[in-house]
Amino acid sequence: MFEAAELGRRVAKRDYEAQIPELRAGLLEAHRELRRSKVPVVVIVSGADGAGKGETVNRLHEWLDPRGLETHVFGVEPDSDEERERPPFWRFWRALPARGRIGILFGSWYTRPIVRRAYGEIGKARLEVELGRIAFFEQMLASDGALVVKFWLHLARKAQRKRLEELERRAKTRWRVSPVDWKHVKLYETFARVSERAISRTDAACAPWHVVEAADHRYRHIAVGRTLLDAMKAAIAGQRAAPAPRPATTPPSGREASASVLDRVDLSRRLTEAEYDERMARLQARLGRLGRAAWEKKRSSVFVFEGWDAAGKGGAIRRLTESLEAKLYRVIPIAAPSDEERAHHYLWRFWRQIPRAGFVTIYDRSWYGRVLVERVEGFATEAEWMRAYLEINDFEEQLAEHGIVLAKLWVHLSRDEQLRRFQHRQGTAYKQHKITDEDWRNREKWDAYEAAVDDMLARTSTRHAPWTLVAGDDKRFARVQVLETACRRIEEAL
Amino acid sequence: MFEAAELGRRVAKRDYEAQIPELRAGLLEAHRELRRSKVPVVVIVSGADGAGKGETVNRLHEWLDPRGLETHVFGVEPDSDEERERPPFWRFWRALPARGRIGILFGSWYTRPIVRRAYGEIGKARLEVELGRIAFFEQMLASDGALVVKFWLHLARKAQRKRLEELERRAKTRWRVSPVDWKHVKLYETFARVSERAISRTDAACAPWHVVEAADHRYRHIAVGRTLLDAMKAAIAGQRAAPAPRPATTPPSGREASASVLDRVDLSRRLTEAEYDERMARLQARLGRLGRAAWEKKRSSVFVFEGWDAAGKGGAIRRLTESLEAKLYRVIPIAAPSDEERAHHYLWRFWRQIPRAGFVTIYDRSWYGRVLVERVEGFATEAEWMRAYLEINDFEEQLAEHGIVLAKLWVHLSRDEQLRRFQHRQGTAYKQHKITDEDWRNREKWDAYEAAVDDMLARTSTRHAPWTLVAGDDKRFARVQVLETACRRIEEAL
Repeated sequence: MFEAAELGRRVAKRDYEAQIPELRAGLLEAHRELRRSKVPVVVIVSGADGAGKGETVNRLHEWLDPRGLETHVFGVEPDSDEERERPPFWRFWRALPARGRIGILFGSWYTRPIVRRAYGEIGKARLEVELGRIAFFEQMLASDGALVVKFWLHLARKAQRKRLEELERRAKTRWRVSPVDWKHVKLYETFARVSERAISRTDAACAPWHVVEAADHRYRHIAVGRTLLDAMKAAIAGQRAAPAPRPATTPPSGREASASVLDRVDLSRRLTEAEYDERMARLQARLGRLGRAAWEKKRSSVFVFEGWDAAGKGGAIRRLTESLEAKLYRVIPIAAPSDEERAHHYLWRFWRQIPRAGFVTIYDRSWYGRVLVERVEGFATEAEWMRAYLEINDFEEQLAEHGIVLAKLWVHLSRDEQLRRFQHRQGTAYKQHKITDEDWRNREKWDAYEAAVDDMLARTSTRHAPWTLVAGDDKRFARVQVLETACRRIEEAL
Repeated sequence: MFEAAELGRRVAKRDYEAQIPELRAGLLEAHRELRRSKVPVVVIVSGADGAGKGETVNRLHEWLDPRGLETHVFGVEPDSDEERERPPFWRFWRALPARGRIGILFGSWYTRPIVRRAYGEIGKARLEVELGRIAFFEQMLASDGALVVKFWLHLARKAQRKRLEELERRAKTRWRVSPVDWKHVKLYETFARVSERAISRTDAACAPWHVVEAADHRYRHIAVGRTLLDAMKAAIAGQRAAPAPRPATTPPSGREASASVLDRVDLSRRLTEAEYDERMARLQARLGRLGRAAWEKKRSSVFVFEGWDAAGKGGAIRRLTESLEAKLYRVIPIAAPSDEERAHHYLWRFWRQIPRAGFVTIYDRSWYGRVLVERVEGFATEAEWMRAYLEINDFEEQLAEHGIVLAKLWVHLSRDEQLRRFQHRQGTAYKQHKITDEDWRNREKWDAYEAAVDDMLARTSTRHAPWTLVAGDDKRFARVQVLETACRRIEEAL
């Protein structure tokens, strides 16, 4: 989940200064309209220690109209006797903004459960209960017309350490670093795991999370400001309707700033034929053994393939199935749903195919169609695809809890390489059937698909079900990467 | 919660036979329309052992069109290897009806968590996690357009025992009684507690529970049939809108059948002046001591007063406060909200007034306005007041978890006695201000209010926050009952 916020995104000073006036004007204007619209806005600023939460809150104060704004700080423990003597949520209720006002919560109802779980003070089930209560609470606010905007400012482990060291070096800022901060650095991995769980459990369409890469303060400020602006505009426009789903994080413009997870895939990696033959032979033998071992141990596997048209999903799947005993696997190609499938919930057709103990189901395209093609082509409403992230996370969590090995592979491809393959298919008689007008139409929507893929990776790459990005420009490399991933995931599970 | 289903409601054979033809015709017609409307209907039939779940399912089969209907039986454990080898919800997904069809689930996703919790196989937190997953799942089905109708067939402890004994007596039915049934009779109280928790946690507007008094089979059949019919009609009518909230259990017509919880209050009870003086003096002294002890032990109390106009809430509250030290309590009269209150969620004004440790807040009318006056007068939309039961249960649960003593008192009154008091007020100069046109208007809506009160009692009388029905026709009796309740609740907590 946090991979999408470790891309080194930054905004140059000049670009920043060029963007700020418009952003500020937009925020003030939206803030003014908000008053008339009577929508209460709850902005949660949370995230890693040292990620600049305080600075971000200060910036919002500078940008918004202070007359319609209030900020509340929430630590792990209640701040006063007054608070301790009431039920835990009392302190949050008193901080809720009135209709037409913005309440910025620096720390929130997430702080205490996350910290207590990371410290081992509460168990896993208790965390789930707390998150359930939070989800209910946010849904209640949203049903009442509130706009709930949740920011998670993320810092990679190294960046966190560096930031604290910098603060300690300077006399002027040394006081800002506490022993607790260093304790949290040591617990980095634990905090990341618990936070990710909290985010994925509560990433509801009515109160979605926006995970923001926080290392560069200019990028962070612009990302937060833009996202808030978009969310406010949507809420103002749709205020009479049901609470509208909010867009995912809007990346600021500018080359460096908009680096996406996909841009990070090194598409230049290649294998020679000899290298390929040797590695593939070994991998297939290994996968064959693993498939048999998994069957004996009754561990099932689910492999999900998504990717651009002509990225080579089919070829990779064939290399996978070649290695497995025929009785052990089934490949489920996902095209337009059947009548019967259409008559059910969209997840029904995927639940049907979950393998029995020890077997393998390979989905050639999958439930992710809901947040990819159905989103881009408008087959699903915004409310439907926004809701789907949480539904998908819940579904995959059930698979993981049952002990099913789950590998999700996005086979990536450069735009140029796709064009070459399309042209090659058209020029090759026996491949012409593989290229249709629809492929060309999809290609024209590359940017929209890329945004959808970005969102999908950010919102559904969880610890129990991470995405693997496969470098697909070289088919040999891609196939080897796919088989390696499959082997690794099964090995981890056995 | 189950008190509302222990009223001895029954339908005479003649009445039953008179109602059946219309009900059956209605169900068949609705079932036909359902096909066209493409709404999938999930009917859950659950409840106590011996409550006639099987018989009810059979009756529905008789009444509906078998071509658009399927039934699935779910026990505690999965039925087959096939099911055991997949995640637990797989067996439910495969049973979901297609759009336009009805799926009757005899046992359901509730069965296993309830039984395992009652047996002590899972802890409290684990039960909450399971219920959270169920709530999410049902919400997902409802968002997808499904109508989810959940019946809980309730039997009082005695009735359950009697029913099993009857079955055992006859050779023909003896086989239907198993050792497990008797085990469950012994665990009656535990099952009731766990079931009530499951019901109150999942009584969402999009998938509400209908608790049906099950002892009389004719009443049970008609209650289930009517409720299902109403729900289907609403779903068919509103199918393009957001999933409409469903009405609470529709009581079958006929005098005996429609006995409500309120009818059970014995309004004939009275006290002489001498009895009253003596008891009141002792109760006030006792409450004074308890108030002081609670303050020392830092246990707060919340007393909620609701009731008919002129039922004597004010007088009862005065007797309560007379007994307490002035610094310890606050009375919060709830009238129309202030501007500031109106600018927040409706629960905000009540959260504000939650007492500090050791103190007492008395609400003269309360958050229940949402499901009483706001429902009846149309100030809240149906979606809003349907949602409120769950919101209120969650709120009160937070109070209870924090250790706050909670007493909820409905001061009841007969229609005749109310009239006498209204007339008396009008005829007494210093009391004229207490009677307004609004009181007369409310009186005209007595039946609508009574239905709302019935619903409120059924849906919000939980173990941690039960309602007390105060017999208000005699003011002396009512005041004594109020003070007794207050004393008892505090004593239980200390």
